[in-house]
Amino acid sequence: MRPSGRAPDQLRTIVLETGFSRHAEGSCLAKFGDTHVLCTASIEERVPPFLRNSGKGWVTAEYGMLPRSTHTRTDREAAKGKQSGRTHEIQRLIGRSLRSVTDLVAMGERQIKVDCDVLQADGGTRTASITGAFVALHLAFQKLVAEGKLASVPLTDHVAAISCGIYEGVAVADLDYPEDSNAQADANFVLTGNGGIVEVQGTAEERPFSHAQLLELLALADKGVAQLVAAQKKALGL
Amino acid sequence: MRPSGRAPDQLRTIVLETGFSRHAEGSCLAKFGDTHVLCTASIEERVPPFLRNSGKGWVTAEYGMLPRSTHTRTDREAAKGKQSGRTHEIQRLIGRSLRSVTDLVAMGERQIKVDCDVLQADGGTRTASITGAFVALHLAFQKLVAEGKLASVPLTDHVAAISCGIYEGVAVADLDYPEDSNAQADANFVLTGNGGIVEVQGTAEERPFSHAQLLELLALADKGVAQLVAAQKKALGL
Amino acid sequence: MRPSGRAPDQLRTIVLETGFSRHAEGSCLAKFGDTHVLCTASIEERVPPFLRNSGKGWVTAEYGMLPRSTHTRTDREAAKGKQSGRTHEIQRLIGRSLRSVTDLVAMGERQIKVDCDVLQADGGTRTASITGAFVALHLAFQKLVAEGKLASVPLTDHVAAISCGIYEGVAVADLDYPEDSNAQADANFVLTGNGGIVEVQGTAEERPFSHAQLLELLALADKGVAQLVAAQKKALGL
Amino acid sequence: MRPSGRAPDQLRTIVLETGFSRHAEGSCLAKFGDTHVLCTASIEERVPPFLRNSGKGWVTAEYGMLPRSTHTRTDREAAKGKQSGRTHEIQRLIGRSLRSVTDLVAMGERQIKVDCDVLQADGGTRTASITGAFVALHLAFQKLVAEGKLASVPLTDHVAAISCGIYEGVAVADLDYPEDSNAQADANFVLTGNGGIVEVQGTAEERPFSHAQLLELLALADKGVAQLVAAQKKALGL
Amino acid sequence: MRPSGRAPDQLRTIVLETGFSRHAEGSCLAKFGDTHVLCTASIEERVPPFLRNSGKGWVTAEYGMLPRSTHTRTDREAAKGKQSGRTHEIQRLIGRSLRSVTDLVAMGERQIKVDCDVLQADGGTRTASITGAFVALHLAFQKLVAEGKLASVPLTDHVAAISCGIYEGVAVADLDYPEDSNAQADANFVLTGNGGIVEVQGTAEERPFSHAQLLELLALADKGVAQLVAAQKKALGL
Amino acid sequence: MRPSGRAPDQLRTIVLETGFSRHAEGSCLAKFGDTHVLCTASIEERVPPFLRNSGKGWVTAEYGMLPRSTHTRTDREAAKGKQSGRTHEIQRLIGRSLRSVTDLVAMGERQIKVDCDVLQADGGTRTASITGAFVALHLAFQKLVAEGKLASVPLTDHVAAISCGIYEGVAVADLDYPEDSNAQADANFVLTGNGGIVEVQGTAEERPFSHAQLLELLALADKGVAQLVAAQKKALGL
Repeated sequence: MRPSGRAPDQLRTIVLETGFSRHAEGSCLAKFGDTHVLCTASIEERVPPFLRNSGKGWVTAEYGMLPRSTHTRTDREAAKGKQSGRTHEIQRLIGRSLRSVTDLVAMGERQIKVDCDVLQADGGTRTASITGAFVALHLAFQKLVAEGKLASVPLTDHVAAISCGIYEGVAVADLDYPEDSNAQADANFVLTGNGGIVEVQGTAEERPFSHAQLLELLALADKGVAQLVAAQKKALGL
Repeated sequence: MRPSGRAPDQLRTIVLETGFSRHAEGSCLAKFGDTHVLCTASIEERVPPFLRNSGKGWVTAEYGMLPRSTHTRTDREAAKGKQSGRTHEIQRLIGRSLRSVTDLVAMGERQIKVDCDVLQADGGTRTASITGAFVALHLAFQKLVAEGKLASVPLTDHVAAISCGIYEGVAVADLDYPEDSNAQADANFVLTGNGGIVEVQGTAEERPFSHAQLLELLALADKGVAQLVAAQKKALGL
Repeated sequence: MRPSGRAPDQLRTIVLETGFSRHAEGSCLAKFGDTHVLCTASIEERVPPFLRNSGKGWVTAEYGMLPRSTHTRTDREAAKGKQSGRTHEIQRLIGRSLRSVTDLVAMGERQIKVDCDVLQADGGTRTASITGAFVALHLAFQKLVAEGKLASVPLTDHVAAISCGIYEGVAVADLDYPEDSNAQADANFVLTGNGGIVEVQGTAEERPFSHAQLLELLALADKGVAQLVAAQKKALGL
Repeated sequence: MRPSGRAPDQLRTIVLETGFSRHAEGSCLAKFGDTHVLCTASIEERVPPFLRNSGKGWVTAEYGMLPRSTHTRTDREAAKGKQSGRTHEIQRLIGRSLRSVTDLVAMGERQIKVDCDVLQADGGTRTASITGAFVALHLAFQKLVAEGKLASVPLTDHVAAISCGIYEGVAVADLDYPEDSNAQADANFVLTGNGGIVEVQGTAEERPFSHAQLLELLALADKGVAQLVAAQKKALGL
Repeated sequence: MRPSGRAPDQLRTIVLETGFSRHAEGSCLAKFGDTHVLCTASIEERVPPFLRNSGKGWVTAEYGMLPRSTHTRTDREAAKGKQSGRTHEIQRLIGRSLRSVTDLVAMGERQIKVDCDVLQADGGTRTASITGAFVALHLAFQKLVAEGKLASVPLTDHVAAISCGIYEGVAVADLDYPEDSNAQADANFVLTGNGGIVEVQGTAEERPFSHAQLLELLALADKGVAQLVAAQKKALGL
Repeated sequence: MRPSGRAPDQLRTIVLETGFSRHAEGSCLAKFGDTHVLCTASIEERVPPFLRNSGKGWVTAEYGMLPRSTHTRTDREAAKGKQSGRTHEIQRLIGRSLRSVTDLVAMGERQIKVDCDVLQADGGTRTASITGAFVALHLAFQKLVAEGKLASVPLTDHVAAISCGIYEGVAVADLDYPEDSNAQADANFVLTGNGGIVEVQGTAEERPFSHAQLLELLALADKGVAQLVAAQKKALGL
């Protein structure tokens, strides 16, 4: 039995609220149950040095947690003077995920930075970030299209992410914090709308897991991401 | 004429929404028009080294802005590896303001940290922070009272803050961003419920201002803070 | 009774010694009693990036304390690897104060940096810094005039600063360390030669202060700054 | 055809040279072809704060690359003053991998730090690090056993790692640098001697990969890790 | 001919002014011509961790330059967030020099930190620092003796330093800035009152120097340090 | 009697192994007994800003120790976020030593960085670094000659280094760790093939040393460096 009473393949309530931020070119407050991540996309009309005069654009991401988004207060990274290894890992993952469905040539020589800031955490902040970041990015591209700077949105597919894990011996989808901190294994899957694998990161927490279990988790992820992509389409009015 | 069409002494719409954060011991989303600051209070059952075994508690604050809370994106302080001088100034101001109405002996040897994170900025983030932080702090103290750890809330008065300035030659209250960036002078006032001055910080931007102008700004602040204190009382159910 | 035996409106012995530093384009050792601050102005023939090709110049300041300028040794900021919030606050204040009386267009596209280094501290280091920094800045401008690079000194007025406070219930001027650490409230006033207010920063230490008290402090500041401006004129031979 | 002429499932020449370092309690120079990683295990008779008096030990890892281990020189992280996100990611992965086969209770309240320093890089530095780090860790535990501090080596299984990828449409094992930089997808597998999955990290570089491809890579990894475990046993004389 | 017109073995005017700093337990403004270094000694009644409960004390030094002590302004190390390699080198040298004549057991389990801050630089700041630091240290020990905390000053000899170099082919003593920046070779000698060598650091700038030249420089140093020690004695009233 | 049983003037076994690193333009593993330093030279076709368009090149060095190169593990400088004062001192010394025999004009406007990384330490890491760095630098220049970018190797002489010290009252050459940590005095000599002095750094550890002792150490250094230069020539096939 899951602590939340959910069925093994049941996601938390998913809300993708667009337009949360007044200033950003695209924004989405992604809620996976009690996990709330504010995703904002900012357009810059110049690229990082390694892409200058390449004719290609770039999409990157940054990630942060408000100090009291967590159950007990976490020290502020700005005050400590550096970002943790975990922060680096997550923001690199978000960036790679978004770029996997972006046509960097078609977007032109500009950069979009997506900031994912966790307002409240209850497990799965990185998967909520990726899912919401895609929406914010799409909105920013829509704005460029509306302004006549792009002919069409240069995204080749949807991308969304979900965490699945082995909890008390059972494969379950969309882990919340109580599950996440007691799972035998958990894996984050970043998948496209077409079901392609962009990224899979599975970790045994207590003891190694088997090939069969990996496949079970993958099947749950397929099913869950399909629902997330549907939610993205609805939020974007597609 | 103010860009927003407000009367010189008219505040923006003030909303103090409590309970925004699920985990914090006290929380308040303070909205001064389009300026939105999330204030969360976290209780720690130990004090900084300089107060150990002193029988006194401590209240402190930290401040941050989400990168895209601003009109154009601001670099993330955690990524830059240090907090700006402005951030230091503001969080020290919030902390002093809160301590000015806290009975540090009565609160016992514990610390409360109030995080003020700007979700959206449109001028006056520091005054919204102080006003909301007081509410979050009060709620955290209420929780300690409810748990039987304190006999009563160890706050001696309310504290709230407002910015006033000379805009196109006229003294106006609660500057928004368009006013703030064009004011001839602006001053932040931190006042108590009884009208005592906790902190006044006036700065001439273009040319020095006169004694008479300082008094005009102070009068506007008195009036505005009275309304903010009323809003705090309503939010706290007092 | 003040610890030093001074009358409430009596400043400490003020000495503004020019030419203390052999290399700087302008220098002034500002002594407010036992508070000694070495102010040096350095001319650079280029401006910060945000002003390039703007036709405007810039004046900025940095502040530091020698480790043993204080009663007990303070850790060296260079060794700690960062400047404190207090340092940031003070150097920003000095810079704003100097710019308030500088004609940035008339000075041409160059920058003057004024370093204020506290050799010995006994309260009021920021007000001594501002007062001495003005002298160092003036001397640097005089040098540019002497070299034919400027037609006249591009300063529109004098600027000087004083701290006043409520000590044992009485408003007193130019607080020294024993007063500063026990004052009920203290305020720093940065005023021009014409009596205009450039900056006012008042802080209640123990309990809030009243409107009447703020006015009393302001009156003391007016009187004190007049004496400081006279001392600046004498030091500059004006 | 692979640039090296290897068969798809053929590993590079694997050498695990023990005793490379005179001072370390356990050491192994792990060579996967031209990728050379020096792994040293250091025993400390105390644990990190979060484990004090818990009766449990800890195993952790650090990772670094010599500046000229790479094809063109990479800036020294010590000179830049911070470790990159990639470094953080890798050293966290090594630590988790080692802990997955360590009985933290049986090892007693002490810590073993394994340093993995890349002397020469030609792809697969993280998998060589994990494979060599296990050997260094085992040797350090053997030393504790020899000194009578432990009854037996508290490792529950072997752990080793391999990278597999889709190169020119074909699934291949143990990518070298020319393959790694042109792979369509690559995945790192950390597996135990019993074939359990400790960690899987798959990333699409160019376009998403399919479920079938993931399984192909997993099959190659199983086969490759079996060879690596055999090499570990030989190096350890087991 | 030396730029200053001095004879090859002639030192600049040496002034060792004691009591410059009101707060420090010992202080000395050391002037070697236009090089002015403020040296302050601070007593702390505890030692660094590696000496706790060892019965031994410690003497250490820190060094800094005011930004405009130099001909053109040097960036402030506190603002840059780190001390340069040169600063580290010099402060380690000063500390070693002082410890070479201090009886660390006799001084008791306390620490003395000597800060050497360059107010004005014209070559030879490290040698002026060492020479002045000795005086400040001696005064701090005298204070401990006067307070009855020590029976006698725990210094076994004097220590002082001088730079000598080959300038236009001639060996000269106490290089000033114009010489220092054009010397073929220069060497810093730290010698005791008895003529023992504490430290010698010779560096060829343009081309290697010979054994004979090293001996010439050493002879000049002997003679110069004798004068510096005499000046120390006079300043200390010995 | 030396702990190693060596005669006073006897060096440890010296091995200068070239070609250790596959990627570097020049590399040398320098072994002085159990002290092993990997030296790699990297050519960059651009110079630091202060030399742009000067027609001159630059040679610089960086130094590091692997965490477990030492008897007990040393914290990784990259993890601590800064290089120690000792590291700064050593890498500056290596750079100066190499430049003393390099014709910076003849090498053309390019830079060579030599990294000296200590794989194993047993005293004398800086002298082994200098001696091996020269070989790596020479090889890099040979490569430029072979590629037709330089007419000849722009080195004017050999440079090598040795540490000598007073151990149990006797002057001995090439100190190993047990000697180094108990020497009364030790000195590092950087000498050219012609016997010129590039750098001498002598330090008294326990008590000052005499002029006569300095000369004894210098004589040992002359003899030892002659052997090191011979080893360099052999390694370079000169």
